[in-house]
Amino acid sequence: MTIPEIEALMDQHFPDWRNFSQIIALGVQDITLKMPFHKRLLRAGGTISGPAMMAFADTAAYYLTLAHVGPTAASAATANLDIHFLSRPRPIDMTCVARVLRLGRRLAVSAVDIHSGDDLVAHATVTYALPPTK
Amino acid sequence: MTIPEIEALMDQHFPDWRNFSQIIALGVQDITLKMPFHKRLLRAGGTISGPAMMAFADTAAYYLTLAHVGPTAASAATANLDIHFLSRPRPIDMTCVARVLRLGRRLAVSAVDIHSGDDLVAHATVTYALPPTK
Amino acid sequence: MTIPEIEALMDQHFPDWRNFSQIIALGVQDITLKMPFHKRLLRAGGTISGPAMMAFADTAAYYLTLAHVGPTAASAATANLDIHFLSRPRPIDMTCVARVLRLGRRLAVSAVDIHSGDDLVAHATVTYALPPTK
Amino acid sequence: MTIPEIEALMDQHFPDWRNFSQIIALGVQDITLKMPFHKRLLRAGGTISGPAMMAFADTAAYYLTLAHVGPTAASAATANLDIHFLSRPRPIDMTCVARVLRLGRRLAVSAVDIHSGDDLVAHATVTYALPPTK
Repeated sequence: MTIPEIEALMDQHFPDWRNFSQIIALGVQDITLKMPFHKRLLRAGGTISGPAMMAFADTAAYYLTLAHVGPTAASAATANLDIHFLSRPRPIDMTCVARVLRLGRRLAVSAVDIHSGDDLVAHATVTYALPPTK
Repeated sequence: MTIPEIEALMDQHFPDWRNFSQIIALGVQDITLKMPFHKRLLRAGGTISGPAMMAFADTAAYYLTLAHVGPTAASAATANLDIHFLSRPRPIDMTCVARVLRLGRRLAVSAVDIHSGDDLVAHATVTYALPPTK
Repeated sequence: MTIPEIEALMDQHFPDWRNFSQIIALGVQDITLKMPFHKRLLRAGGTISGPAMMAFADTAAYYLTLAHVGPTAASAATANLDIHFLSRPRPIDMTCVARVLRLGRRLAVSAVDIHSGDDLVAHATVTYALPPTK
Repeated sequence: MTIPEIEALMDQHFPDWRNFSQIIALGVQDITLKMPFHKRLLRAGGTISGPAMMAFADTAAYYLTLAHVGPTAASAATANLDIHFLSRPRPIDMTCVARVLRLGRRLAVSAVDIHSGDDLVAHATVTYALPPTK
C-alpha cells in the first residue's frame, strides 16, 4: 500500500489517528513516522510517557506491515512487543523509523528506533500475527 | 508502601489515575490491579487495544516497585517492557497480577499476567531502573 | 505426549540430550526439568553461563510444546526468546518450570522460571512457531 | 579497548573463544563478528541451532561493551537478552553486527543483527549490567 492508501484506511477506522502519528516517508524496507507533541503525552518530570512511546512503536510496525502485506493485514494483531527505553525524551515531536526484519506468511517482524531530536530514545522489536490467507 | 500510601502518592502526581487502574490487593510478592472498562480503550473489532494493555502492565510493575522500594522509587523509569499478547480481551474490566522476580539495588524486574475474565490475555516482563541511592 | 514418548523422540534425534536436560515432571499446564551440573557449563567467576540458561529455557519450552501438540511439533522452531537474568546461579544442578501461556494453531507461548536451589535465577518467555497443519 | 586488547583479555579468560567467535571489525558505534561453522552447531534439519545464535548475539554485545567501557566491564553480566529468529541459517559461517543503543553508567544496551550469507537470520537486543564504579 502507498502512504495515501494507508491514510485512507486509517481515516476509515481511527478518525483521530493523525493526532498521534503522521506518516513522513515510506521506503522499500522502512517507514518514518512523526508523533506530534501534545501535553497529554507527558508524565511527571516533563518527559514523554513510556506508554506513548510503546503505542508509537506499535503503530509504526502496523503501518509498515500494511504497506508490505496490503489491506488484508488491517486485522493483524500484535503478538509481541519488546521495547528498551534508552533516554528520556524531551517534550517535543518524536520521530521513528521502522524497518522490516522478516515478512513471512504468518508473522511480520519489525525493528523500530524512536528519536527525540538527535537522541535515540527507544528501540523496539514488534511482531504482528497476520490473518490467515485462504 | 501500603495501598493507601501508594494511592496518596498517585493522587498527588496523576490526579486521574483511578480511571485507568485500581489497586485490589497487595501481597508479600505480588499486587493485583483492575483496569475498569471504558470505551476509549477499544480498538476496531471491539477488543481492548494493545497500548492499553501495555500501559496496564507498566503501571502494575510501577506500583509493585513502589510497594517494595518505597517513595524514593517514584522517579523510577521503565528500562524494558516485553509483552506477549495471548488472546483478544473482551470489552470488560481487566485484572492483572504482577509479581516480583528480582529486586536489586539498581533494577526491579516484575512478571505481569493480564486476565480478561478467566482468559489469560497477556504476559509481560517489566524492568524498572531505580534512582541511585546515596 | 507423555514423558516416555518425549524421551523416545529425543533419543532418536539428539542422542546426548540427557546430559543437558532431564524431565522431572509433566503437569497439565507445566513441565519441570533438571539441568545436571557439569563444569563445561561454567563461565569465569564460577557461575553457570547465560547461554547454558538460554538453552535450558528453550529446551523446556520445546518439551512443553511437544507434550501439548504432539510429535508433529518436533519440527517447531523458536520464533522468539526473551530472558531476564535475575541472579548468578551457583555451580550446582538447576531446575526449571515451564508453563503454557498460549497454545494456538500457529504459536505456542511458554513462561519459564529457572531456579538454582531456592533462588529464582532467570525468567524467560519463549514462542515456538508450529509447523502448518493440513 | 582495541581489537587486540579484547583478544588478549579473551585469551586470558576463555582460551578456546576463537572457535566460537572472531572479531572482524570494530567501528565507532558497532562491532562485526564471525562465527566459524562447525558441525557441533547444527541441530536436526541441518540448520544452526538457536542456542548457538543466542550465544553469538550475547558474545557480540559483550565485546562491544568491552570496547566502549574498557576492561572494568569484563565482569559485566547479561541482564536481558531478547532474540527474534527470522529464518533458518544454512550450515555455513555466520556474521553479526552489534551496535550501541545506549551506554549508561549502569546499563549497556546493544542491538545485534545476525546474518547467514545475505539472509538476516536473527535480531537481538542485549542489555549488560555494568559493574559499579567507585
